[in-house]
Amino acid sequence: MPEKRKLHLNAFLMSVGHHEASWRLPESDPYAGWSVKHYQELARIAERGRLDSLFLADSPVQQGDPGRRPTGKLEPTVLLTALAGVTSRIGLIATASTSYNEPYNLARRFSSLDHISDGRAGWNIVTTAGADAARNFGLDDVPLHRERYERADEFLEVATKLWDSWADDAVLADKDAGVHADAAKVRAINHRGRYFRVDGPLNVPRSPQGWPLLVQAGSSEDGRDFAAKWAEAVFTAQQTLAEGRAFYRDLKQRAAALGRDPDGVKILPGIVPVIGDTAAEARELDAELERLISPEYARAQLAERFHLTPADLPLDEPLPDNLPTEDQIEGAKSRFTLIVDLARRENLTVRQLIGRLGGGRGHRTFAGTPSQVADTIEEWFDSGAADGFNIMPAVLPSGLVAFVDKVVPILQERGRFRTEYEGATLREHYGLPRPAATSFAYHPELITQ
Amino acid sequence: MPEKRKLHLNAFLMSVGHHEASWRLPESDPYAGWSVKHYQELARIAERGRLDSLFLADSPVQQGDPGRRPTGKLEPTVLLTALAGVTSRIGLIATASTSYNEPYNLARRFSSLDHISDGRAGWNIVTTAGADAARNFGLDDVPLHRERYERADEFLEVATKLWDSWADDAVLADKDAGVHADAAKVRAINHRGRYFRVDGPLNVPRSPQGWPLLVQAGSSEDGRDFAAKWAEAVFTAQQTLAEGRAFYRDLKQRAAALGRDPDGVKILPGIVPVIGDTAAEARELDAELERLISPEYARAQLAERFHLTPADLPLDEPLPDNLPTEDQIEGAKSRFTLIVDLARRENLTVRQLIGRLGGGRGHRTFAGTPSQVADTIEEWFDSGAADGFNIMPAVLPSGLVAFVDKVVPILQERGRFRTEYEGATLREHYGLPRPAATSFAYHPELITQ
Ligand SMILES: Cc1cc2nc3c(=O)[nH]c(=O)nc-3n(C[C@H](O)[C@H](O)[C@H](O)COP(=O)(O)O)c2cc1C
Ligand SMILES: Cc1cc2nc3c(=O)[nH]c(=O)nc-3n(C[C@H](O)[C@H](O)[C@H](O)COP(=O)(O)O)c2cc1C
Repeated sequence: MPEKRKLHLNAFLMSVGHHEASWRLPESDPYAGWSVKHYQELARIAERGRLDSLFLADSPVQQGDPGRRPTGKLEPTVLLTALAGVTSRIGLIATASTSYNEPYNLARRFSSLDHISDGRAGWNIVTTAGADAARNFGLDDVPLHRERYERADEFLEVATKLWDSWADDAVLADKDAGVHADAAKVRAINHRGRYFRVDGPLNVPRSPQGWPLLVQAGSSEDGRDFAAKWAEAVFTAQQTLAEGRAFYRDLKQRAAALGRDPDGVKILPGIVPVIGDTAAEARELDAELERLISPEYARAQLAERFHLTPADLPLDEPLPDNLPTEDQIEGAKSRFTLIVDLARRENLTVRQLIGRLGGGRGHRTFAGTPSQVADTIEEWFDSGAADGFNIMPAVLPSGLVAFVDKVVPILQERGRFRTEYEGATLREHYGLPRPAATSFAYHPELITQ
Repeated sequence: MPEKRKLHLNAFLMSVGHHEASWRLPESDPYAGWSVKHYQELARIAERGRLDSLFLADSPVQQGDPGRRPTGKLEPTVLLTALAGVTSRIGLIATASTSYNEPYNLARRFSSLDHISDGRAGWNIVTTAGADAARNFGLDDVPLHRERYERADEFLEVATKLWDSWADDAVLADKDAGVHADAAKVRAINHRGRYFRVDGPLNVPRSPQGWPLLVQAGSSEDGRDFAAKWAEAVFTAQQTLAEGRAFYRDLKQRAAALGRDPDGVKILPGIVPVIGDTAAEARELDAELERLISPEYARAQLAERFHLTPADLPLDEPLPDNLPTEDQIEGAKSRFTLIVDLARRENLTVRQLIGRLGGGRGHRTFAGTPSQVADTIEEWFDSGAADGFNIMPAVLPSGLVAFVDKVVPILQERGRFRTEYEGATLREHYGLPRPAATSFAYHPELITQ
């Protein structure tokens, strides 16, 4: 019997959970968002479950109303370094923005994290929607969606050249001759582009993985093209199996059209598992969380997303007809469309929509028993909608504990998930190759000098 | 008898030591520069010695010839986070540049490090001399010295406003009412300046220390003015006691003239202690290190500093007369002057000068027994040249071990240095106050809205 195809699991860690009201549960520590101990506990749990990786989302802005939910959070490259210290195998994926960073500094931090963690660093590349973030960086409004992705593309070009600017065998350490490195193998990159001019080389030798694992989460046209070119793992929000399959097929095709091995791009839809020992118990936890949502606050967020005012969205009526179209949205385009489609498909009132979004902000919530959760994961995995999942527990740590202690063993029993780590690096967990330094790996056309 | 005034000690960690040839010693690990384990060992040694802090220098550029000495190094805010995990008391000071960072991102990383370390973060604020660094950030040449310091000043204005944008008591965590923070205590900063426009607030609650400890190391006129306004600790290179006293007096006066308590600015000259059990042993270690220097390489560096070519500097002749003057140097002005003065004062040939600089790059090298090292520290401390010292071991870890195990006990016996940590935070170790959030602390004139 051939070995079953193995799935990949990523733990998306977010304060006390993905449900916006989770902090109000008796069990939750409302200061956990900026507590290194909390995150270290989560990292240990995820590693106990042999998960491929853990992941921290981010945006360089105070997001949402601090009166309503925990908004403070630590910078991810720094926080992941602290998590590297208490784990030894699990991959560590940090979000960072190409719109509001300099490539030299960011490439260096990821290289440093990869050295410190012995090859466990990953970068979730985002272009950062929202005018509020732009206004922390000298701009009046967010740069156009297309321009953000153009800059992101050039940013990756610079970053990969910097990571490759030291050959793997550059350091000689010849004490007798007094020669530390072969200077010919530490090369300037002399990048001259539209957004960046960077001489290089990087001031860090090539790291264990060569490049951090490149992860991406944009689902718009621009976002998918970018992912097809650069991403090795893709996070995505998909509500139905049919949509999930269409997205999966589309992205693999785009990657293949660029000459890449489609298997070199792992697709990881999000799932918010609400786990109970019985289906009724799971539904009860789900309902308790929904009761704790403040609809006024969620309505204001929804209105902002739609470029409307809260008064335009009566709570007990369906969404109005006069919504903008996706091409009028300069922020998160694909998330906008997902939400409108969900509301229309299921004929939801604004209040019902808010309840549905409260858990996963557009990600699929699934309340059920451990084996029901394992079933839906297998179903998506087997029907061409996923190479693995982005696990987004509604409540943390308890939801992660439930997933690791109850769902993972079922997936292991069914031969779907590893029982021990086999590789050492994050790339090895995902079965992805280490890029060669000499070729600028996937993109030989990038060598400009 | 009144308690003796206590001195402060900072361990300046740099790869395998401050001597440029230290990596060639049999004991040295030539890969240590980017090894987290090496730095963790150093941090543990420094904490065992009850030192106030440890410190990492930095520049966002590949510095020097990688063929000749170890040049790779990890990004300091990330590396210090890894050191926070293996220590519990010692302060952690990272260098970061105001010329090549965005205030929102950097303020956030320091706030994160302060949270993660429970109040042990410090920031060595530099403006980064050198065209090579500029060319990693889209510029053709380094910005003018004066302009770099103007930008640094505004950078600090923005950073301190961001650190104060959450009041200390902003978070309420009222689960029943569903109120996480008092939104009125999380304030936009709406900064509009010449270099930066930043709306804020920061997306991290105020950290244990409020602000990281602010450290500075510029010794030029602009640098001293900046230090007098912002710095709470000042690193400096001083070759003679007379120069040290003059610098000390000058900086305290400048701080007082701005209305600050002169005792709120700690002056820490650098010292490169080369320690032997006998004076002869110390001199032998010093001579061994000098023999390992490649004069050609050091001459090229010196020539660059003087805006000359190596051929302009015959090894066995004194410095030529046609050197530029300090005001023609756009890089490190005060270091230039220190080196020229040293060569002229002691009538050194280029080769001799190179030997003197090899150890401390302009810092005072002192070869002697543990009690001789303790004596010179006490002498400077008692005669108004220092509030403490920046300890720069020529070889690491062995030089730090020697200092901690042999010099520190003498200073403790003499009642000059703590035998146990008394405070918890870096500010407490240096006897410096925690800035209040509501007043923008030292600079009420900064409140612009
Ligand atoms: C699982 C997941 C995680 C994401 N994390 C972030 C994040 O941390 N920061 C961010 O700015 N955007 C994040 N995004 C948003 C995407 O980067 C992207 O902006 C969004 O999906 C809209 O896609 P588009 O930009 O292609 O329209 C995330 C999206 C998904 C699906
Ligand atoms: C102990 C010490 C440490 C320093 N560390 C750094 C550093 O890490 N990065 C940097 O760019 N400059 C560093 N400097 C240089 C100063 O920031 C400054 O540029 C230099 O002393 C010249 O002063 P000036 O800029 O006022 O002319 C350091 C200086 C001293 C004395």
